[in-house]
Formats: sequence, C-alpha cells, structure tokens
Amino acid sequence: MEFSSKLLENAVNEMSQLPGIGKRTALRLVLHMLRQPKEHTNALTEALSTMRHQVKFCKSCNNISDVELCEICSNPNRNEEIICVVEDIRDVMAIENTSSFKGLYHVLGGKISPMDGIGPHDLNIETLVNKVKEGKVKELIFALSSTMEGDTTNFYIYRQIQDYNVFTSTIARGISVGDELEYADEITLGRSIVNRIPFENSLKI
Amino acid sequence: MEFSSKLLENAVNEMSQLPGIGKRTALRLVLHMLRQPKEHTNALTEALSTMRHQVKFCKSCNNISDVELCEICSNPNRNEEIICVVEDIRDVMAIENTSSFKGLYHVLGGKISPMDGIGPHDLNIETLVNKVKEGKVKELIFALSSTMEGDTTNFYIYRQIQDYNVFTSTIARGISVGDELEYADEITLGRSIVNRIPFENSLKI
Ligand SMILES: [Zn+2]
Ligand SMILES: [Zn+2]
Repeated sequence: MEFSSKLLENAVNEMSQLPGIGKRTALRLVLHMLRQPKEHTNALTEALSTMRHQVKFCKSCNNISDVELCEICSNPNRNEEIICVVEDIRDVMAIENTSSFKGLYHVLGGKISPMDGIGPHDLNIETLVNKVKEGKVKELIFALSSTMEGDTTNFYIYRQIQDYNVFTSTIARGISVGDELEYADEITLGRSIVNRIPFENSLKI
Repeated sequence: MEFSSKLLENAVNEMSQLPGIGKRTALRLVLHMLRQPKEHTNALTEALSTMRHQVKFCKSCNNISDVELCEICSNPNRNEEIICVVEDIRDVMAIENTSSFKGLYHVLGGKISPMDGIGPHDLNIETLVNKVKEGKVKELIFALSSTMEGDTTNFYIYRQIQDYNVFTSTIARGISVGDELEYADEITLGRSIVNRIPFENSLKI
C-alpha cells in the first residue's frame, strides 16, 4: 500500500497492529476520523490513553476496576466461599449478565499455553491457590473454555489445591438452550449425554 | 453491557464510535491493549492524534499530503491536462497501484447524497470546475463508484463544465455495477481506465 502521507501511513500502521484489523480496515477507520471533527479523535485517544495508564485491577480477583477492591468483591451480599475461575474479564461480564451466580470471581488473565509461551507464572494462579490455602473457599468453579489449554490450566490449578478441603466443579457443557440436536458437534453432544442430569432437576430451572 | 470500570467503559464506547466496530469488538481491542505494554497504546494514540491535527490536503487535488502540493501534482512527468475525478484518497491509491494512469487526480471527498445530507457544496467541486474554466484541462475522467450517488455527482459536474472545451469520460465498466473501486482487482481497474468511454455515451445506457 502506497501512502501519499507519512502521517497517514503511520496512523494506519498503528491501527493495523490491533488484532483483526487489517491495513484496509485501518485505512477506512482513519479516513473516517479525518471526515469527523477533530474532537472525536481527541475523545478517542484521550479515552484510550487514560484507560491504559490509569486502569486498576482488583487486588483480590484481578477484575478490571476503578477502585482497589472491585464492586463484586466488596459486595457483602456475594458469597465469598464460592469462587468462579475465568480467563478474562469478558467472562465475568458474560456470567454476571446471566444473574445466575452470586459468588466471587478469580480472573486468571489467560490460560496456560506453551505454544504461545504462557506458563503458570504468567497467570494469576498463585493468588488463587493462596485464597484456597487460607481455608475460606469451599468451592472453586472452573469456567475456562473447553480447549486443551483450558483443560491444562484447570488441571494445573487442581493439582495445586487438591490436598486442601475445597470442592471443585466445572460448568456444565451441553447443547445450547434452543439448539437443534442434529447441529451440535459430536464432542458437545457426547458430553451432554454423559453429564445428563436427573429430569426432575431440569424442571427446577 | 455492564462494565466494572468507568475508564474501560469510556474507552470501549469511544472505540465503538468507529464504523463497523461494535461494542464486543471494541472490548476485545481494548483488552488487547491492556495486555500489551503501555508504549503500544502511546504509539497508537500519538499517531492518530498527530495525523488528525497535522494532516494536510494538497491545495490542488485535495489528496492527503504532508506538503502543500502532493507528490503527484508536483511530479513534472504527470500529464496535467487529464484529471481523474475520484471520491476518496483510497481511489487514488487504488488507481496509482495499477500504474495505468499518468494524469492528475481531483479528490471530491465524497459524492452527492441528499439522503446523507451531502450536497455539491460539501464536496470539492468548485475547485475542479475552476480548473476546467482556466482552460488547462483537456479531459476529465469520472472514476466515481457506479451508484446512484456517483451518477448524480458525475452529472452535476458535467452540467457545470459542459460549455467549456473539455472532453469527459467515465472509466469503463469492467467493474461490476455497485462495487466499490478500492476492492476491484488491479487488472480490471487498470483496463477500465484504459478503456474509458466518453461520458455522454454512458448516459445512453
Ligand atoms: Zn474483585
Ligand atoms: Zn495533489
């Protein structure tokens, strides 16, 4: 791509560093900014810069927060004996959105992935293990994605805490509510049969 | 979408103002920035801000340029008697990439679109008409996208300059009707310039 301006080229190159944003998309976005008042670009760069430099992570669960202890961790109505272990703050947002969980979270910040050079010490695993060792946690729910990396991470954490008195569970995998059986992938369908629940239980939902 | 941080929410909201970037994509991009060193965000915001505030437009053709007169307009080997009229600098980039055109460009900055509130006076039409009136232009090539707005814009300009001694052509429709110029392959785009037809002929369709 030949640019008529270094300033433009530089802006496009920086935008296209973002995942999923190619050069063409970056150019489209940058030209859009040029057509809008300068104030729009100011607001964008200001918001990104402030966020990147001032964002805090909850000292207990590692969720993104503007205060030391996030709203979930500091909410007296949440059950601190149950901790749901997730990869990412997007998972916290997704689960919170279901209003089905009243415990606390622990955000790992990723999953163990030797291929990507991510080991256990790159993740917030030690602080989770320490919480268990302190004896206040009764249940850990593993809610990582069901990939090899997710399973490896679950198992790594499980090995660290198995000698402590804590119950561990993983979220149920199955066919999505409303989905047709015939379109489900084999593994999901297989798991949903193996992990079937008493019919009476399904009526309580 | 419920955010655990105002700073995060603000950054996501600003990112999702960009066309084609929804809230989920914006969140994904912003979380990616948080995982990268601060310097990456600094480089991005700096590049966007500098570009937005310091970018110049060529005083002759309105192409984006870091100098008063762009490299194309100031190139003595280009034929200033032939002007290719385009919507957008992406079209200049696309045509330059074919190496099939050795004249100059005129970037309108859009096309007439009453639906979007864009009239002739919102575009760089007057400066183009003045170039024709000065008598140095022998041919205008209309290379707008072949949409109703593109045709309207071509015709509006044609009416302004039809009493002057200038030949008008449109690029040959090797490009599918309704397709954007920038997505055309080089060969098709190159051919459609070489095989351009008199503008009057295109009206008979
Ligand atoms: Zn927290
Ligand atoms: Zn120029």
